[in-house]
Amino acid sequence: MAAGDVSAMELANVALKLAADQTVLNAIVSLDPEIVRQQAEASDVRRKSGNLLSEIDGVCIAVKDNFWTKDYPTTACSNAAPVYPENVDSSVVEKLRSAGAIIFAKTNMHEWAYGATNGTSSIGPTRNPHNVEHITGGSSGGSAALVAAGIVPAALGSDTGGSVRIPSGACGIYGFKPSYGRASRHGVLPLSWSLDAPGLMATTLHDLELLLPYFIGADQADGTTIHSKPYTAGKTIEHPKLVNLVGAGLERSEEVNATLNHALQQVQAFAEVNTGEIPDLGSYFAAWEAILHAEATSFHAEQLANDPSGYSAITRSHLEAGKLLSATELLKAQQLRTEFCRAIDELLKNADALVLPTLPVTAPKLGEDWQEFGNLRVTSQDSMTWFCWLGNLAGLPCLSIPCGLSHAGLPVGMMLMGRAGDDEKLFNAARQLDLAINP
Amino acid sequence: MAAGDVSAMELANVALKLAADQTVLNAIVSLDPEIVRQQAEASDVRRKSGNLLSEIDGVCIAVKDNFWTKDYPTTACSNAAPVYPENVDSSVVEKLRSAGAIIFAKTNMHEWAYGATNGTSSIGPTRNPHNVEHITGGSSGGSAALVAAGIVPAALGSDTGGSVRIPSGACGIYGFKPSYGRASRHGVLPLSWSLDAPGLMATTLHDLELLLPYFIGADQADGTTIHSKPYTAGKTIEHPKLVNLVGAGLERSEEVNATLNHALQQVQAFAEVNTGEIPDLGSYFAAWEAILHAEATSFHAEQLANDPSGYSAITRSHLEAGKLLSATELLKAQQLRTEFCRAIDELLKNADALVLPTLPVTAPKLGEDWQEFGNLRVTSQDSMTWFCWLGNLAGLPCLSIPCGLSHAGLPVGMMLMGRAGDDEKLFNAARQLDLAINP
Repeated sequence: MAAGDVSAMELANVALKLAADQTVLNAIVSLDPEIVRQQAEASDVRRKSGNLLSEIDGVCIAVKDNFWTKDYPTTACSNAAPVYPENVDSSVVEKLRSAGAIIFAKTNMHEWAYGATNGTSSIGPTRNPHNVEHITGGSSGGSAALVAAGIVPAALGSDTGGSVRIPSGACGIYGFKPSYGRASRHGVLPLSWSLDAPGLMATTLHDLELLLPYFIGADQADGTTIHSKPYTAGKTIEHPKLVNLVGAGLERSEEVNATLNHALQQVQAFAEVNTGEIPDLGSYFAAWEAILHAEATSFHAEQLANDPSGYSAITRSHLEAGKLLSATELLKAQQLRTEFCRAIDELLKNADALVLPTLPVTAPKLGEDWQEFGNLRVTSQDSMTWFCWLGNLAGLPCLSIPCGLSHAGLPVGMMLMGRAGDDEKLFNAARQLDLAINP
Repeated sequence: MAAGDVSAMELANVALKLAADQTVLNAIVSLDPEIVRQQAEASDVRRKSGNLLSEIDGVCIAVKDNFWTKDYPTTACSNAAPVYPENVDSSVVEKLRSAGAIIFAKTNMHEWAYGATNGTSSIGPTRNPHNVEHITGGSSGGSAALVAAGIVPAALGSDTGGSVRIPSGACGIYGFKPSYGRASRHGVLPLSWSLDAPGLMATTLHDLELLLPYFIGADQADGTTIHSKPYTAGKTIEHPKLVNLVGAGLERSEEVNATLNHALQQVQAFAEVNTGEIPDLGSYFAAWEAILHAEATSFHAEQLANDPSGYSAITRSHLEAGKLLSATELLKAQQLRTEFCRAIDELLKNADALVLPTLPVTAPKLGEDWQEFGNLRVTSQDSMTWFCWLGNLAGLPCLSIPCGLSHAGLPVGMMLMGRAGDDEKLFNAARQLDLAINP
């Protein structure tokens, strides 16, 4: 667009055409071509008159269906969800829209974000663009599918235990969950407020970075962000120090492990790679689960009491289970969380980022309930959050970057996790790594 | 001592004599005259050789029996309490001891600090020096009684819902609870870790201020203090702005109200006094109670399961009740807490301190279970925490200063509450007020 080769309208029309051609992905909840074209037209007018709002003016961005958007209802892909007021944008959508971004569509998600497969949704499961017999992972699966299929260059998701990174890893794109409190959640329907973060997905690391200034920052409407500084890209760290996490609780399939190790070999010439472990990971995982369930149940308590009929059976059973947790169990979980944050801080003292695969397996097939890896048999659901919950429990900035394909042609992701609050440093460390892994 | 008029040993002997004469107060759990004299002797040696450790070198300080002290066991005045390792000081005691303070005795307290009357204790109730037929209030009642009786000039207490300020108010001395996270709780047996603060009591405001540098500050052993700056006294605020809190939930007896208003008249020449209200105080009080009960039950869970026999019936029933709280109820309480902190912040935006009586009544008689004031009938227990819990729920620095006597000769206290974290400002505002009220 900047070179004058193509207009926002032409790009929007291509995106609309691709979306119409790829309904098999089942990635879209709401899309009105007219609304898209109006935004594209306005952008082209601004460009012609030299009044561009930002360098992302005219770029199509898809939005997970738990963000308020003024043009579309917000359903969280649940029949129990009230359709939230149209006419109001969530803070992050408003910020992107004010920069000229075209809000392209509302995307399919796991019901209420309460699951990581995108298999439970009021409009049915989302399919993986790399192989439509496989799931995208979730809960931001529709957003990931649109980006991975090349329909839009970027999308918004939300992430409570990996919901941005999981489908990014499974679909072979770049996914970013900011530190807790760096980006606003105002107008994003919550799953678990002490774990939730909004997140970004894009085709390249550079595209992600272009969006960050319009995503990160303080918002009076979300108290957790009031100390968030605006995003300011820093100098690339030429010799990043990494800690490759291994050990009990961090098992992964041989194929995923080999792909990750191959990627790490690509960076060994300039990066320092040490290994690290976290003891008692099982109890920290239990803490993450307890906090998630208690907070989710708390948020849904009123709706669940008044009219539970709209929830799917599985989501409802999760919410009912949350009622059984006692205050002392939750306190124990909150204490374990503090302990976990200290252990992570310790690991990050002499490192720029922690490294894990994004997922222990490649995208499961639709309807496949179990995964086997590392001599374990794990539900597909649990295999999706296997590594990702760590970043939410400790509030870390986390980035999933593609790092290869399996023999079956399914993507493998590498996850980088930085120090809480220092999202800039994570990107400064990632740039050089990405260049070597994805030249 | 500095003038050479009296030695630390002479002062210690006076204190020991007074303590022996006033056993009727039942304020002391452990006191070994030999241990006191050894410390006094060491101080006198330092003074003679010009090696004083600080300006508080040689001052006797009493310590509530839930602080670890290396010379005495720590019982929390409970038969269920393991006697914690002698030979180890809590961080605050260590800091005072390193400044040369004489750790004088361990003092009577409400069992496990779980109550505000000092009526429940393994060694029996504490009596008020102003009238031994009346209680001291608690849970740091023994510390307050020793200071109020002139036995020691200062003492340590702990404060979860007023346990330092309540007996300070009821006994007519100065009591200070720092902001949450400004002073270390390492080695202080917890009641409710998100509400607990250690606190100081003294005969004068100046004495309190002398102790603050050896009390406030970061301690690696208490993670909540790691951002605590050392205490640095600032310039006196000559025209402090006060908000006098009134309204539903803040009722007090006519006598207390008149005494407080009289004190406020003394400061009107130089201070700005406005009135303020906090809506929905009842729900915030319920939040404080839920957090208190859940955290206390969590801390005692193991002991309660293994051997509940040592707890008094009333304490045990509190702990059993805490088990019935659900995770979602606790989350609701934690959310209300956040809301309450915002309301308090708003009130403190244009004020240096909030003002309340420390207690709605003067010290109840021993065995008196109910108090009547403001057309209410309230348990003596609830009347003690009536105003004080606000400071714990919001983590504010709070100061109780004497502001007069009732017709019956019982003390009335004025409570000043400052902005969380800015304990210095609270003292800067209080100095001038105290001078006018207690000339």
